[in-house]
Amino acid sequence: MLKAVDEIRRELGAEAVSTDEGDLEHHGYSEWSTSNADERPVAVVRPTSTEQVSTIAKICTKYKVPMIPYGAGSSIEGNFSCPYSGICIDLSAMNKIIQFRPQDMDVVVQPGVNWMTLNEEIKDSGLFLPLDPSPTAFIGGMVATNCSGTNAMRYGTMKDYVVNLTVVLADGSVIKTRHRPRKTSAGYNLNSLFTGSEGTLGIITEATVKLAILPTNFSVATVAFKSIHAAAAAASTMVRSGLPLAALELMDEVQMQTINKNGGTAGRMWEEAPTLFLKFSGTENAIKDSIKAAHTICRQHGASGFEGVNTKKEMDLLWSARKEALWAAIALKPEGTVIWSTDVAVPISRMADLIEESKTKATELGLWNSVIGHVGDGNFHQALIYHPDVASERQKVADCVDTMVQKAIEMEGTVSGEHGIGLGKKHCLLKELGPPTIGVMKALKDTLDPHWLLNPGKVFDE
Amino acid sequence: MLKAVDEIRRELGAEAVSTDEGDLEHHGYSEWSTSNADERPVAVVRPTSTEQVSTIAKICTKYKVPMIPYGAGSSIEGNFSCPYSGICIDLSAMNKIIQFRPQDMDVVVQPGVNWMTLNEEIKDSGLFLPLDPSPTAFIGGMVATNCSGTNAMRYGTMKDYVVNLTVVLADGSVIKTRHRPRKTSAGYNLNSLFTGSEGTLGIITEATVKLAILPTNFSVATVAFKSIHAAAAAASTMVRSGLPLAALELMDEVQMQTINKNGGTAGRMWEEAPTLFLKFSGTENAIKDSIKAAHTICRQHGASGFEGVNTKKEMDLLWSARKEALWAAIALKPEGTVIWSTDVAVPISRMADLIEESKTKATELGLWNSVIGHVGDGNFHQALIYHPDVASERQKVADCVDTMVQKAIEMEGTVSGEHGIGLGKKHCLLKELGPPTIGVMKALKDTLDPHWLLNPGKVFDE
Repeated sequence: MLKAVDEIRRELGAEAVSTDEGDLEHHGYSEWSTSNADERPVAVVRPTSTEQVSTIAKICTKYKVPMIPYGAGSSIEGNFSCPYSGICIDLSAMNKIIQFRPQDMDVVVQPGVNWMTLNEEIKDSGLFLPLDPSPTAFIGGMVATNCSGTNAMRYGTMKDYVVNLTVVLADGSVIKTRHRPRKTSAGYNLNSLFTGSEGTLGIITEATVKLAILPTNFSVATVAFKSIHAAAAAASTMVRSGLPLAALELMDEVQMQTINKNGGTAGRMWEEAPTLFLKFSGTENAIKDSIKAAHTICRQHGASGFEGVNTKKEMDLLWSARKEALWAAIALKPEGTVIWSTDVAVPISRMADLIEESKTKATELGLWNSVIGHVGDGNFHQALIYHPDVASERQKVADCVDTMVQKAIEMEGTVSGEHGIGLGKKHCLLKELGPPTIGVMKALKDTLDPHWLLNPGKVFDE
Repeated sequence: MLKAVDEIRRELGAEAVSTDEGDLEHHGYSEWSTSNADERPVAVVRPTSTEQVSTIAKICTKYKVPMIPYGAGSSIEGNFSCPYSGICIDLSAMNKIIQFRPQDMDVVVQPGVNWMTLNEEIKDSGLFLPLDPSPTAFIGGMVATNCSGTNAMRYGTMKDYVVNLTVVLADGSVIKTRHRPRKTSAGYNLNSLFTGSEGTLGIITEATVKLAILPTNFSVATVAFKSIHAAAAAASTMVRSGLPLAALELMDEVQMQTINKNGGTAGRMWEEAPTLFLKFSGTENAIKDSIKAAHTICRQHGASGFEGVNTKKEMDLLWSARKEALWAAIALKPEGTVIWSTDVAVPISRMADLIEESKTKATELGLWNSVIGHVGDGNFHQALIYHPDVASERQKVADCVDTMVQKAIEMEGTVSGEHGIGLGKKHCLLKELGPPTIGVMKALKDTLDPHWLLNPGKVFDE
């Protein structure tokens, strides 16, 4: 490994290679992550071009050294940890917006571009990249984990926005998946193969992404329900009625309580009940129609309060409860505890059952737990707080997560709706898909990365 | 090959195997297709289950016999022709709707289900599969070619509707790509790998597809422009303004003339000018807002007439001109001529240029030609009428298509927006993507079908 580091240093220059202890620790461990490996990388390399990434890959292949692509470090399933050590390829220096073409509604970016920076840069064009992952996330990592967030119900997930990718393969060869059409039926869909492959098939060094029209009119509403089932049923009815919802989020009573305990939102206190957060967009008249219809549906499902607002200030205030949910939980967690946050997705009709069962299980085990759901997608997150140094608590968390994942599989769901598999959910993926399907995935991995050097130990084992 | 046929007959029963000359001809040749092979299959086999398809694949692999999956036969790039002969696997007997789950907004179907039949069966639920290919198309073939049509701008293409696939691989093994979540980040995206692979990686024997909400309110408008450029500019402005258009189609002056020559639509005659066909859907108020905005934009681009209607009868009449475009051209073509219809897609800003250049080239060569465009996607079809028995005319058509494809590539476009590569566009795909990218696709093919028995001679050559 050290020979490879030396050779990279000779090729890229000393300033591109770091072996600083803090740097290695920062790139090999995350307190946000559900799983971490004991190993750390031997070096962090910061390339500035596709050519440099290609050079690194050639050298790593020559010495058979693992390569771990690294973006913003915001993934939470151990996606960038390095169980076999190796060289961390930090792409944050590749942060240029290369070409923005408003007329074609696309933009070419390097992988280290932050999505919020991009959206800020291009906002005057009336376009935006409608994903909504961690505020710190980079586009390369967003592609690698096929991220999504609160906008997915309306706009889809990252895979729906990839027009083309420039990818460095394990051996250092460079391919561009396709040109720049918005639609194609020409050849195999390599965009979707690399998207969500978590850096195990290639290193993304450039991406052209589609942009969507930034809505000019919004409205936000919140409404509290008597139970998770009532909230989920109302959500499902809204989706089925074709309301043009921009987002549809659920927070359980524990999460609402947490926000209150943390001082509410700008002083406002909330009913501590399962609550739906609705965002509408469209023409002014369409929004009016939609709010009226949504209000009726919520009333039919037993909700009494329905608060709709439409000035920017009021909307930001109302939505901030959703936005700050995780931070509120973090602020209140007792000293020495950590949060385990994981996600699953199931067919919509099963979501309320799974949320209830997951909450009951965690509560029975005496764990603080809360749920946030992307209801329109059947996708939700359960957060559990525990003492990592207490073996019995760690075991309880593991039991909870195993039960949730197992039940999601039984309900024909998936073990990860938007966080990926990483290090921590490999055994879950095997249970979800079974050996023959995993076998096909591994055969593809063998083909593109015969020595398993790209982010080894992730998604599945050799 | 005949040994394989005998063994399949023994395993599946004589009634599942046909060697009737007419049957072989029908399954090996299409007058709709731009390319046909000289060979015909040695047999047509009609399995009724995944198990039977698996049995066929095992036998074909044992005897190294090509397998050509066949759906409705509506593809037009020679996608089901059999240049190496082989056994045609006709999936039309697998035409069951297996499970419809309106609450989860999905449906499980066999590959031989026709999309219009499906939509008719489920229409009372307020859901539909929003693709719009040939009226005869089956869902298996729609997945295999990643089809789309006039609804793609609003709803996306077939790949966006695949929740999971059951696939028989070349060696007869069976995999299911995933469970039934609407959203996932778990493992490689095999759905998208098989979707659009034109039967070269596996045979689709079951599919779960997402459904969309059937809009209850529609409106249709048509508007004639002074030039293709003016129409395209108006279309682009409408898209960029975020109007909730359900469809946005362009027909050139030749196509409008053809409709008139064919008697118009229910007696109505049309201005013979480049014409946009617009479909709106949403709440009643949203539609009103949108029509007003669209009218303003069209006027700004020099259009004088703007006809908007909203009763079902009027809308059907207006839209029928778009729907019957191809049939009008067929009805009028001289005895002994055939139509070559092919498609490309380019970044939206380049589409008007490419349409104009393609029209000019064909007209200079003395060929009747017309254009229909899915303007919102930068995707259009050019139809050329020629005498297939006159070598010089055939050459002219080939020149036109080559020029169009070459220019589409230069404009960073794709050589097929929705018809696939099939037999006829292999050399174009190579030009579009280049050897390294094609090399990756071939490596994937090698991995999943090491003897190249699945639909050989399509997409690319060994």
